[in-house]
Order: sequence, then C-alpha cells, then structure tokens
Amino acid sequence: MPIDPAARAGGILTIDLAAIQGNYRRLQKKLGGTACAAVVKADAYGLGASEVGPALWTAGARRFFVAMPDEGIRLRRSLPDAEIYILGGLFEDAEEAYFGHDLRPVLNSLREVRLWADFRRRRQSRLAAALQIDSGMNRLGLPKEEVTALQQAEDILQNLDLCFVMSHLASADEAGNVQNQEQLTRFRTSLDHFPKLAASLANSSGIFLGAAYHFDLARPGAALYGINPTPGQANPMQPVVQLQARVLQVRNIQPGDRVGYGGRFQAEKPGRIATVAVGYADGFLRYLSDRGSAWFQGTRLPLAGLVSMDVAGVDVTGLPPDRLKPGDLVELLGPNQGVDDLAAQAGTIGYEILTALGRRYHRVYRGA
Amino acid sequence: MPIDPAARAGGILTIDLAAIQGNYRRLQKKLGGTACAAVVKADAYGLGASEVGPALWTAGARRFFVAMPDEGIRLRRSLPDAEIYILGGLFEDAEEAYFGHDLRPVLNSLREVRLWADFRRRRQSRLAAALQIDSGMNRLGLPKEEVTALQQAEDILQNLDLCFVMSHLASADEAGNVQNQEQLTRFRTSLDHFPKLAASLANSSGIFLGAAYHFDLARPGAALYGINPTPGQANPMQPVVQLQARVLQVRNIQPGDRVGYGGRFQAEKPGRIATVAVGYADGFLRYLSDRGSAWFQGTRLPLAGLVSMDVAGVDVTGLPPDRLKPGDLVELLGPNQGVDDLAAQAGTIGYEILTALGRRYHRVYRGA
Repeated sequence: MPIDPAARAGGILTIDLAAIQGNYRRLQKKLGGTACAAVVKADAYGLGASEVGPALWTAGARRFFVAMPDEGIRLRRSLPDAEIYILGGLFEDAEEAYFGHDLRPVLNSLREVRLWADFRRRRQSRLAAALQIDSGMNRLGLPKEEVTALQQAEDILQNLDLCFVMSHLASADEAGNVQNQEQLTRFRTSLDHFPKLAASLANSSGIFLGAAYHFDLARPGAALYGINPTPGQANPMQPVVQLQARVLQVRNIQPGDRVGYGGRFQAEKPGRIATVAVGYADGFLRYLSDRGSAWFQGTRLPLAGLVSMDVAGVDVTGLPPDRLKPGDLVELLGPNQGVDDLAAQAGTIGYEILTALGRRYHRVYRGA
Repeated sequence: MPIDPAARAGGILTIDLAAIQGNYRRLQKKLGGTACAAVVKADAYGLGASEVGPALWTAGARRFFVAMPDEGIRLRRSLPDAEIYILGGLFEDAEEAYFGHDLRPVLNSLREVRLWADFRRRRQSRLAAALQIDSGMNRLGLPKEEVTALQQAEDILQNLDLCFVMSHLASADEAGNVQNQEQLTRFRTSLDHFPKLAASLANSSGIFLGAAYHFDLARPGAALYGINPTPGQANPMQPVVQLQARVLQVRNIQPGDRVGYGGRFQAEKPGRIATVAVGYADGFLRYLSDRGSAWFQGTRLPLAGLVSMDVAGVDVTGLPPDRLKPGDLVELLGPNQGVDDLAAQAGTIGYEILTALGRRYHRVYRGA
C-alpha cells in the first residue's frame, strides 16, 4: 500500500512557483527597460533552485546569480541556456570548473581579474565575466585603488569579456539611509572608468529606490520569494511560502506544570499544550522560543517553552477543547504569519527564515 | 582536468568518525552493564546519519533513535540489522511505512498505543515498539492518567510487543536542578505499572547524573558529537567537528569606513577586513554578527558587521599585513573554538550549531 509521503512528515512546506513568477513579472514591469535578473543563491533562498530556476526562466529571466561555483554547477543542469554568474567570485584552482559549466565569475578583486585574464590566454577562448566594484559596503568588489589600477592596465582589460560592472547596496531596505545616495555617487564615479560597459546596482530593495538606481540590470532575490523589499510599507510582493506543522499530541496541564527543556514555561492556570513535529533542526529557530507563535483556524497559539530539536510546544488553551487533534496541521508560515513576521519574532530577517528551512519537510510545489 | 571539490567550496566541514566512535565507547564504559543506544535524529545532529550510523554500529551500537519516520526509512538503508526507534511516535495512516521498513514507534499516547495494537491485529504479526511516559516535561509521552488507563487495558497490553518503557529528562544538563530528581521519582512510580519491562531514561547529560538514572538503556546523542554533557565542568567528550571558511578577499579600511549590511560596523582606526565565504545560509547563524569570531594561526579574529547570507566579514587587523591571503582557510569550529563556544557567541546551544550546518560545505569524513 503506497503511503502518502505527507503522512510521514513532521511539516509540510508549500512553495508557490506561480507566485514567484508573478513577483518576477511585477519587478520587471517596475523596472521598465532595465533588464531583471534573478538571484537564486543558497538554493534559491532555501526554496529549491532546481524548481525555482526553471520557473523564473519561464517567466522571462535569462541571467541568474548564485554565490558559489558548486551552486552554479548544479543550476546549470536545470538551466542549460541561462547566463549564470558566481557572486563569490573566481576561486583559484577552480577556473576549469567555471569554464566547463559555462559559469561567469563576478570578478571581485584585481587578483581575480588577473587570474581570469591569464586563464583566458591559456584557454584562448572568450570567457564572459562581470566586474564588481566596492561602493562602500567593504564586502566584495574592487576597492577604489584597484579600479584605478585596472583602468590603466589596458592589456588586462583587452583580455576580459566583461558583460557589465556591478556593485551592491548595503542599506537599500532603508529608503532614507544616506548610505544609498553615497553608494550611488561612488558607483557612478567608478563607472566613468568603464564607459562602454553596462551597469548593475539594485538588489530587491534597490529597485524601489527609484529609477536612478536601476541602470541596465537589476538583481532581485528576496522580493521574488515574497520578502518585503520596502520594510515599514505595505509589501508589494505576493507571499510564496506556506509551512504547516503536524500535531503529535495534545495534553492538559495544571498550574505549576512545566513544559519543555529547562522547564522554562510554567503554567499559571489549567490549559492545554500541543506538541508539533517541527523543531530547530528544521530551521524553526530556537530563538523563537517563548516568542514565536503558530496559528490554527484564525487563532494565534503562542509557543510554550524552548523549541526542541525536532518538536515545539504550543499553548492551545485559547482553542476550544478537542478542536485540535493529533494529525492536524498548524500554520507556521502562511496567511496569518508571513516570513517577515516570523523573522521579527525570532529577532532576525526573513532571508534567514527562508535559508534555514530544513530538509525534513515534505515539499509541495504549486503552480508553474 | 579534475577539480578538487574542496577548491570550489566556501567552507570545509571535517567530521571525525573515529572521535564519534571514541565518544560512544567512553559513554558505554561509563554506563557499565547498561546498554548504550545512539541518537542519530536530525541527520545525526547535522553530521550525516548515513556515515555516522554505520560508524556507531561498528563501535557497538545496536539501537538507534531518530525523530521522524522518514529519517528511519533512510537510516534503514545504511543499517539493515539495527533496531530503529521513531521518537516522534506513530503517525496515523503511516503504519505500513513503519512495518515495511522495520521501524519501531515510540508510542507517545494511549491513542498511538491503540492505533498500533489495531494495526498489529490486522497484520497478525509481532510489531516491536517502545512506550514513552511523560515524567514532567509535558512534551511527548503518556500523561499519568493514560498510564493508569493503559495498565487496566490488559487486552491492549497483550497486543503490544513492548521492548522498553522510556521517559525524557528536561534539565539533565543542570546537575543541581531539582527537576531531575522529580522526574526520576515519577518515572520510577510509572514503572511499577510495567514490572516486566526494561526501562530507559538518560540522555547524554543524564548518563552523568549517576547510576540511578541509567536503568537498562541510555540514549545519548549530543555527547557522541562532542557537545559537553556536563556544562560548567570540563568536557569529557572528544571534539568531532572542524569547520573552515575560505577567504575570498582582504581589504584595507580607513576610519569611518563601514562594513556589511546596514553599515553596522564602522572602523575607528585603519585596519583590514577579510570576507570569508560562509554565511547564515550555511547555518553560520546571523546572531553571530558582531559577537562571533574566527581564528587563524592562533589569533582570534572578531566578526565585523552583520553576517550576510553567503559571506561574513572578519576583522583581521590583529594579523600582520599579508599574513592572510585569498584562498586561505580560517577556523570557525576547531581547536580554538568548539561547538559549545560558537553556540555561546550566538546565544544558543551547541545542538543548534550542529543541526544548522549547511549543505554547501565540502564534507570530509575522517577515521572509522
């Protein structure tokens, strides 16, 4: 007798590929004539790059960004014709892997530029790449002095097939942050050194900072997956993810009874505790302990005590007795509580909620 | 030309299977005549159940515990002859999956006991299981009233092939916590109802609470993987895990320069920042931002700014210039900074550090 795999799972993760496509189209529309790439690093922010990548291709994306060369190698299998860029740059001694899988490094330093130009000479082949310039985040990209040196090294520049120059915004999610304008100015100044190249600056939030930030190519990630690119304002994106946890047990507790590790939750009045089959090993962060919540039929159910590795306690006293039964599913992410909401409960950002999503969930892909 | 996969990875995770085996033997020795099981749930605490399981089998473990039925199905492939118990209990409508893969549910409620007894009648087969009694953690297991009811339901008890009765300690890592003695007393009282059955109470820390907690079977997990079962005292276990992060870039910064998202780190004096290729999508928790550290050649290197999804900034001003180069590896977990240390920096426990370990690391298994 075949068993429905969902019946064996502690949690069910539903990913709406049609919503991701809708989000892509919405961003592309907002960008007008600026091309819209898709950032699918970290396994498409935890949602599965081999499913999400082709869905975005269908929606019109042709340029994809991942972080590490291994991610590019895997993505190439599901996107044979896409341009795939490696944000982490060129890893020394791995040049052949980039070449063999048609991966384009985002060259982050003069050192990487030289390595790639040398490799191109040895290979005697055109080898596309992008160039990243640091505009004030001090994370990845050529610092100002290396930009100047590169501009003067015409022999190197002639040995590169650069598709565009890019930089990355550190504070785009705060529209009023002065750092945005500072980075824009620095990026423009750097671009003067490369007048013939296309340019790319905006991440998800950068798209909403105005057309001055758009240039030739935008690189949204988070917004595709439903994270609000405009914190503090209404979320212009569609939600993408639903997460439900299976109820294992419901029990009565009496005043003084303790729940979970360390006995940290102690009941003050008679109540009921449900144990649900999702824990921090599933990426339901332990920081949610005593602060996070689940939902059932429109009722908020606060977590009770420390989140365990595989299960969490939920205070279901607010529900009528016998309303919630073993096998029922409570909402951890969904209409009542989105990715950004759960992130706020955990004291982190929606990005980490998504990338932490664990491997034990039964995954359902909708749409596309 | 084959590329060393380590050359393409942002981080290298080395797992010492011989150390896990050594830890198992040390616990078994401490337990004397009490049998020692092995808890390998959550993919052996993130370290890979299909590698760790057989290593523990070689070291002598015969009983294994996982959380979810799907974990048991996968573990069965690498451990054909082991007893595999499912701590999450019996999932309704999945009974055939337990039967087909010879998985033993830890029956956590009278409801599950009845489901399993019914299934046994239909199957007309012996079906091993364990019984969990709640002794005060209010998480999983039969509450007191269900224990009494079960004892009186002789027809059900005769239709069960129970291997042992177990409970779980909520505060074993605090040797002085009164809850330990309370749970021990309640567990003993419950055992009076099942005089013929073997008993199991101790997790890793419970093994160190003394022989009164040992009963017939102990169920360590964390201690096998090097987490200190006696916090506040010297760790009696061997470390198991090393994690190294690849340096992508090293740059000079000047007073006033900002690093990373939100510009949260601002330099007060000239210095150097290394960007390493590990981020929160790798389970290097974002909570480590501004608090965590890396190590290189015996020097502590504080994190600078917010941990990004794929990279983190490290303040390497304390190293001589040019000492650290792109391609070098810094230590995130190792001799200078163990799992419990990193957990303290992140405000969590070593268990979460391990289960959060990401999928992008190049994994190296040593020993066994």
